[in-house]
Amino acid sequence: MPEFSPVFREQLHDLFRWRRDVRHFRRDPLPEPVLDGLLRTACLAPSVGLSEPWRFVRVDDPHRRAAVRSDFARCNARALSDRAGVDAQRYARLKLAGLDDAPHHVAVLSHPEPAQGRGLGRGTMPQTTTWSTVMAIHTFWLAATAAGIGVGWVSIIDPERIKAMLDVDPALELVAYLCVGYPARPASTPELERRGWERRAPERREWIRR
Amino acid sequence: MPEFSPVFREQLHDLFRWRRDVRHFRRDPLPEPVLDGLLRTACLAPSVGLSEPWRFVRVDDPHRRAAVRSDFARCNARALSDRAGVDAQRYARLKLAGLDDAPHHVAVLSHPEPAQGRGLGRGTMPQTTTWSTVMAIHTFWLAATAAGIGVGWVSIIDPERIKAMLDVDPALELVAYLCVGYPARPASTPELERRGWERRAPERREWIRR
Repeated sequence: MPEFSPVFREQLHDLFRWRRDVRHFRRDPLPEPVLDGLLRTACLAPSVGLSEPWRFVRVDDPHRRAAVRSDFARCNARALSDRAGVDAQRYARLKLAGLDDAPHHVAVLSHPEPAQGRGLGRGTMPQTTTWSTVMAIHTFWLAATAAGIGVGWVSIIDPERIKAMLDVDPALELVAYLCVGYPARPASTPELERRGWERRAPERREWIRR
Repeated sequence: MPEFSPVFREQLHDLFRWRRDVRHFRRDPLPEPVLDGLLRTACLAPSVGLSEPWRFVRVDDPHRRAAVRSDFARCNARALSDRAGVDAQRYARLKLAGLDDAPHHVAVLSHPEPAQGRGLGRGTMPQTTTWSTVMAIHTFWLAATAAGIGVGWVSIIDPERIKAMLDVDPALELVAYLCVGYPARPASTPELERRGWERRAPERREWIRR
């Protein structure tokens, strides 16, 4: 086990602080070994019972991508129509996905009842399986950010429709649809803060104690 | 936005590779500012709509801790009784939690419908709220590992009972119960691999393509 220096820990803190949900991408693709390396790194994530339930699907087919974009547009229009007044105006101004420009689309699915791990640790909390896949996505995101590569997590989609579009095993659960590529602009304040949608909660000075 | 060097990226890869679910702890507590700093770092995690739904509860009361340990023992005995033969023998040999020795217990809960974020991004996939809390836990885990501090995620518990024991808002969802402290021994092969329970899947050479 390596020892991590104070310099490394400071940079790790910077990485957490500067990781962004990227929605503006350059169109040039990543070198194939780079994307491949990031996907392998994601597989180092923790998983309950060492079950490694994640399944990564690279979506390259232009027809499938167009279908995903339409589904996003449909779901986003519905989300807008549920809002009114200033709230709706603000929502309409947000750029919520980089599906058009991102050179890579990666769907992340999760096996809900993996044989691997033999059920250990999930008896009373079966959701820990899906949560393992969430940590694989987060691992991918951090490794990408450290390499100057942007990731945007699109959740304004209908997971069942997306699974059908991708023609994957219907037993799998869709956890995320990721846009991946070089960011078109340097990271700054998160889009949602910049456009006045939401800000971080004031730093907590006290934790709940029991 | 800082640039991250190849050296940093290599160390980050080491961090992913060496992060462990720690189950053997020394009993000496962390300096208070260290634990506090790790919890603040956890709050830098991504969250859907910037909703920051995580709630950290430090469990110090010896009676509550004892109750949690009993619940683990009960759930673990049941998990063992569901197994037979070699499987049961192997399960019985595993050390699955460090609840007795870990100087700190941290329960992590999640607000299922936070006002913050105003519902953005979770309309079609409401689970993204809980998943944000999972990424906060993973952030905590990585920051701790980089600081030489061990974290063990206990999931063999009944989440509803634990919430009652902790007397927290019943609307919150229990996501994890963490043991935190200095590891009693250096990280090596994961316990589940070392004891022949499960191994990592052979490295995937191909990703699903669509």
